Amino acid sequence: MRGALLVWYRNNVTKKPLDSYSYFRTLMSMNRFIKCPPLTSVDLQELWSPDIINPREPHSPKTNNSAKEKTTSVIEGKAIAKDIKSQIADEINGMKRSIGKVPGLAVIIIGKRSDSDTFVDLKLKACDRVGIASFKAELPEDCTEDELLGVISDFNLNPSVHGVIVQLPLPKHLSEEKVMSAVSAEKDVDGFHPLHIGNLAIRGRDPLFIPCAARCCIELLLRYDVQIMGKKAVVIGRSKIVGLPISLLLQRYNATVTVIHAFTKNPERLTREADIVVADAGIPNLVRGHWLKEGAFVIDMGTNSIKDANCPHGYHLVGDVCFKEAITKVSAITPVPGGVGPITISMLLTNTLDSAKRMYKFS
Amino acid sequence: MRGALLVWYRNNVTKKPLDSYSYFRTLMSMNRFIKCPPLTSVDLQELWSPDIINPREPHSPKTNNSAKEKTTSVIEGKAIAKDIKSQIADEINGMKRSIGKVPGLAVIIIGKRSDSDTFVDLKLKACDRVGIASFKAELPEDCTEDELLGVISDFNLNPSVHGVIVQLPLPKHLSEEKVMSAVSAEKDVDGFHPLHIGNLAIRGRDPLFIPCAARCCIELLLRYDVQIMGKKAVVIGRSKIVGLPISLLLQRYNATVTVIHAFTKNPERLTREADIVVADAGIPNLVRGHWLKEGAFVIDMGTNSIKDANCPHGYHLVGDVCFKEAITKVSAITPVPGGVGPITISMLLTNTLDSAKRMYKFS
Repeated sequence: MRGALLVWYRNNVTKKPLDSYSYFRTLMSMNRFIKCPPLTSVDLQELWSPDIINPREPHSPKTNNSAKEKTTSVIEGKAIAKDIKSQIADEINGMKRSIGKVPGLAVIIIGKRSDSDTFVDLKLKACDRVGIASFKAELPEDCTEDELLGVISDFNLNPSVHGVIVQLPLPKHLSEEKVMSAVSAEKDVDGFHPLHIGNLAIRGRDPLFIPCAARCCIELLLRYDVQIMGKKAVVIGRSKIVGLPISLLLQRYNATVTVIHAFTKNPERLTREADIVVADAGIPNLVRGHWLKEGAFVIDMGTNSIKDANCPHGYHLVGDVCFKEAITKVSAITPVPGGVGPITISMLLTNTLDSAKRMYKFS
Repeated sequence: MRGALLVWYRNNVTKKPLDSYSYFRTLMSMNRFIKCPPLTSVDLQELWSPDIINPREPHSPKTNNSAKEKTTSVIEGKAIAKDIKSQIADEINGMKRSIGKVPGLAVIIIGKRSDSDTFVDLKLKACDRVGIASFKAELPEDCTEDELLGVISDFNLNPSVHGVIVQLPLPKHLSEEKVMSAVSAEKDVDGFHPLHIGNLAIRGRDPLFIPCAARCCIELLLRYDVQIMGKKAVVIGRSKIVGLPISLLLQRYNATVTVIHAFTKNPERLTREADIVVADAGIPNLVRGHWLKEGAFVIDMGTNSIKDANCPHGYHLVGDVCFKEAITKVSAITPVPGGVGPITISMLLTNTLDSAKRMYKFS
């Protein structure tokens, strides 16, 4: 396999051979404040190695012992998000100075849900902190589809708005598909439009926006110098907001991806073989210690609220991964709360900035 | 897992419990000449079974011994395609009688390639056999992008044309992305438009068209009463025409899908665990006998031409699966040639008929 890669790198990327790890470092050395390079730059040519095509002997699985030397990193999402946000703020200042414009993000929220309110407030505060102009539209729980579509259409047409997001979930009487497709693809900074998902799936294409949760995962893997290509990745859960885009993006990064869902038989066994585990099932502590391979890199996208009278809001958050069991086995893990949450929000800001730069042709 | 399924079926599909197999038979009993039901009808609710959420003991993998009783079926693509085509022809006759219209398919071919010519001829002959009006545009190898886009635009506007396909591969000087996106999504019967791929990937969505190779795979699995849900499926290769849409569609059918590509380590071991194997690597005889689990259902999408002076065309076709080794182990396999090829073409006719029915609001 390696042989094939070296050939490829020599022919297409650089004069001297590079292994995949160095290749990604080269990509990452581009002066970008987030690590995720253009997708098409990770679409490697499908070179099948001779020993796969004409095997001498059946291969035997290799085990990863490097984990034993590692101590587990608990990933501090807040610190990474702070770093990204400060660099977004710098870019926005530069934009303001040179063209007198700033990015704008519109958030639409329907009805009252304590969790939605919390998420929206976090997004708006984050905008404020980096200098993104924010617009908030609050509609009543019983608003009609036409009312909502009207608000979306206004934001689509507003030249000061470069990103439009509708906070999910919607009340039952509104069609999510209809509402989400009403957001202009050019302003769909959540990246949920089927056109973006299609371009995320298709090698050789670069979607206008990559969903924030997926960007967050790749951001973490690249920041922690985790080799993705050729590694086994398991994505547990396949929501269209988190699991699906993450599995598609990891695939684009040339991981060998298996998506585990509620109908998967023996998910623990499949997960135990993974070097990279992303959990998005929405089940508190679903992923137990015996599910995990020693040295795995674990990204917990779960945010499950558990009633708790001792907490100010009356609940506390837990992830999909049983943290206290995982911490003893894995090389790195994102805690809940304080893990992926802040980074995912900073990815929303990144998408909004990218959108504004595209619309103002500012680079 | 089963427990969860029964609950779901009782609540949402029928009053009496059904297992997944009976569920698909119910779907298939709809009076449709192809077996593939609307995608959203296979989007099952994500019910996590209690013994996964709170395991008593770590699960042990189950081995499938049913294979031992099976004799291997060599799937006769021509017979299945003939059956599908005769029913398409009946529908088209009905359409002609009642509204005086027939479906129309436009095929655009650029330059001279013996393989492309063969494929196009097969498609046009098939149209003729079922009563689909066909339109063929031949452009020279050195045609400009504007010339090609002009031809596409004419077919997009032509009300007698319900499907437009551009034969791939294109000459190097033409942008495949630009050309393919020029085909109106409503007439993209190949189903390659990112909008269709996105809607294929997103649970709860039904794309206007499903790529023919993917429809072909599901068609075979359903015709052979293979249970897909919860089964391990391995797709070897990830081309945007074959491997990608197949992996997305198998996922929608609730298989546990792993996509194997050139950078996958130890592909034979991963493939050996699969109940359903789809090969689309474009490597003659890549999948050897020791890659396959006993009783697996093998769909060989490979069509590799091997120079052969003794053959009339100067070459013969072989698949990605080593047929003579596979036949001794698997429960069913598609031969090359004569396997998936004819069925895939009949799926193109199906997509064209569906498109015409949609445009004429004829059911």
